[in-house]
Amino acid sequence: MLGPRQGLLVVLSGPSGVGKGTVVLQAMGRPGEGAARLRRSVSVTTRPPRAGEAEGVDYFFCSAEAFARLVEQGRLLEWAMYLDHRYGTPTAWVDEELGKGHDVVLEIEVQGAMQVRARRPEAVLIYMLPPSWEELKRRLALRDTDDGETQRRRLAVAQEEVTCVPRYDYVIENDSVAEAASRLLAILEAERWRVKRLRPGELES
Amino acid sequence: MLGPRQGLLVVLSGPSGVGKGTVVLQAMGRPGEGAARLRRSVSVTTRPPRAGEAEGVDYFFCSAEAFARLVEQGRLLEWAMYLDHRYGTPTAWVDEELGKGHDVVLEIEVQGAMQVRARRPEAVLIYMLPPSWEELKRRLALRDTDDGETQRRRLAVAQEEVTCVPRYDYVIENDSVAEAASRLLAILEAERWRVKRLRPGELES
Repeated sequence: MLGPRQGLLVVLSGPSGVGKGTVVLQAMGRPGEGAARLRRSVSVTTRPPRAGEAEGVDYFFCSAEAFARLVEQGRLLEWAMYLDHRYGTPTAWVDEELGKGHDVVLEIEVQGAMQVRARRPEAVLIYMLPPSWEELKRRLALRDTDDGETQRRRLAVAQEEVTCVPRYDYVIENDSVAEAASRLLAILEAERWRVKRLRPGELES
Repeated sequence: MLGPRQGLLVVLSGPSGVGKGTVVLQAMGRPGEGAARLRRSVSVTTRPPRAGEAEGVDYFFCSAEAFARLVEQGRLLEWAMYLDHRYGTPTAWVDEELGKGHDVVLEIEVQGAMQVRARRPEAVLIYMLPPSWEELKRRLALRDTDDGETQRRRLAVAQEEVTCVPRYDYVIENDSVAEAASRLLAILEAERWRVKRLRPGELES
């Protein structure tokens, strides 16, 4: 009686270090159709690559000038400044994947999430929390790419951002990667069956 | 960072014969915490027991007078008339189970569902559809407890009821019992993580 469900546009935010990427990768590796439909969006950034990061896999790296052109040309679904660098999501790739019925996850911060909310009201917004601030501090300290000052700034941004959680649809805790991945997949499955996603006339056939 | 999640009040409606009970029982038999938390509410009815139905398992059977007293005393969370008989949900048991953190499923029809929606706005309303009306007819015909006239009435009620689907939160298709049970469990897991279910101050600890 119902036709094939549409691909979902999914925003996953949460403090730096909470494990968003790890959880999405774990979810993508699960068996089942929900996992097979998942795609991770790759952001454009003006931040220089870290050791081990690959162009087109972790980010598309570009100059401040090239980034400004993408913004002017309206080719970014959202963009934001985070710790002195710009990050944005190319619209074309996202729409292409949604058109194929894939669920597209954007791992972006709060400012960008609110732009997606405004432009694509059908998007699903999820905020990921650490089990505690102490645990987040511990996870940030394990990153050897950041100095103490950067760690402190990341934590300050995170504690500021958490006041925006009420603007999201879901909040999930990453107390274990396996549990958090299951929660993410459950949310995506559930959202496919929301009445508000029925297409006009869909129940009549 | 988040405390234990509350039990969910879940309404499952759908045409007679669509397989609501079978799907809930299959979901309850799955491994995992979500399945272990599930409880099926037992309705009170003025309908006489069918062969094989047991008091307190399938229904609490009672007289029209006893039912009227339950209504007067405000002891039913919802009640409705369906094919000449009354059916209702005892409030006390539901609240007791929710208090234990269980997710309580009410298998009730549309009139009752709308009463639950009004009284308990936090309830999750799910409507179950057959893969097609033809398939529903076939499933109804397999029930040897109904005569042809009753089957026709059930089908007519079902086709009328489907206009109320937009008042529900979710619509799931029962094309296979296993898939439908997975969808039900995914919806319950997802709903536990909705931002609107956060308790005041929950993010501050």
